[in-house]
Amino acid sequence: MEHNEYKMYLSKEERMRAVLPFVPEAVVVGNGDFPSHPFPLAVLDASPCVVCCDGGADALVDSGRIPSWIVGDGDSLSATNRVRFHDRIHRISEQETNDQTKAITFLAAKGIRRMVLVGATGKREDHTLGNISLLMEYQQMGLEVAMLTDYGSFVPAADTEKFAGFPRQQVSVFNVDAVQLRSEGLRYPLYDFQSWWQGTLNEVIDSEFCISAKGRYLVYRTYEPKA
Amino acid sequence: MEHNEYKMYLSKEERMRAVLPFVPEAVVVGNGDFPSHPFPLAVLDASPCVVCCDGGADALVDSGRIPSWIVGDGDSLSATNRVRFHDRIHRISEQETNDQTKAITFLAAKGIRRMVLVGATGKREDHTLGNISLLMEYQQMGLEVAMLTDYGSFVPAADTEKFAGFPRQQVSVFNVDAVQLRSEGLRYPLYDFQSWWQGTLNEVIDSEFCISAKGRYLVYRTYEPKA
Repeated sequence: MEHNEYKMYLSKEERMRAVLPFVPEAVVVGNGDFPSHPFPLAVLDASPCVVCCDGGADALVDSGRIPSWIVGDGDSLSATNRVRFHDRIHRISEQETNDQTKAITFLAAKGIRRMVLVGATGKREDHTLGNISLLMEYQQMGLEVAMLTDYGSFVPAADTEKFAGFPRQQVSVFNVDAVQLRSEGLRYPLYDFQSWWQGTLNEVIDSEFCISAKGRYLVYRTYEPKA
Repeated sequence: MEHNEYKMYLSKEERMRAVLPFVPEAVVVGNGDFPSHPFPLAVLDASPCVVCCDGGADALVDSGRIPSWIVGDGDSLSATNRVRFHDRIHRISEQETNDQTKAITFLAAKGIRRMVLVGATGKREDHTLGNISLLMEYQQMGLEVAMLTDYGSFVPAADTEKFAGFPRQQVSVFNVDAVQLRSEGLRYPLYDFQSWWQGTLNEVIDSEFCISAKGRYLVYRTYEPKA
């Protein structure tokens, strides 16, 4: 089967499973670029709870959606939305964590364990890098998290894990502190990467792949197969 | 002096010095988001040599500019530009390095040592992470490089270095393999960061700062002071 036929053969649900390994209980909307790709938007619209990081609420409202909660120090939210949603703003003014982590901690305190992050990338690149690296912290907190962008998903992983995929799906693996990194089902074999570029531009061969390691790493998978 | 007055007081040249420590001999245009901020565009327009990574040439031409060279495997360039610029396309088909590294290596072989990268971020986030981490490789090759985005600059650094800045300029420091990370002139003291988020959201106090360390790290500085 050619990869284009395969892409057409996969349902939206099957392709979603190949980037998101769980059904989220909540979506956190960051203050980066609001998503425009149908995948993160579908996940957002299916979520029973949508928590915005401060000014992220403005973009959500502009898209015709309504936040369940707004978490942050309130400094980047428009005056209109500050008034309109005053009953669902949860103010946290401490400066040790960023708004994304405040939203995640707020949800974790409510007993929510499975969360998706959107709008966490774009705009200032140092925020993007910081937000991505925080996924590992949330995993250490016992949470299941995935970050969905307009191009693919980031999920934190540790030790040996299986991942859903589809032929010619593009995969990048970013090593955090793992050793003995090995793979099955990827086009190029993994090794103990030292630099981030070394784990980029890999590819799924069939419908799943397995990474074995001791330690933590980050898996990025694209929504679309390589053209 | 209030920071807004300071911002108005600084000339464009002074602010440019605070994000770019050298005058580039060439600019490399990547296949990510073409810059829209006046700083990277001014650097691009002042450069005696502009090398495009394959399809990056399409965006450059769409902006009304002309490439000096186009480097890559030629697979993402439009048919029109492939014909129009056939005499300045340098084809490198090996698959071990990405187009950005091919462009850098091409320039280094011509004896060019000071290079700026634009259009290296945006679009697929794994490409962005890979491209950023490659800055350290170029530094190891003996080159002076800086990546300019629409929000700020990334420069690779090692051991003890001084950096230009301005009050309330936002700074993030990403540790690669440095130990004994310390700082003077930043609002929050540096330490031996393990995660990328730990070094984010720092701020310049006056007109310069100094980082001392043993090993490599990456410095991100914004164009604009914090509002």
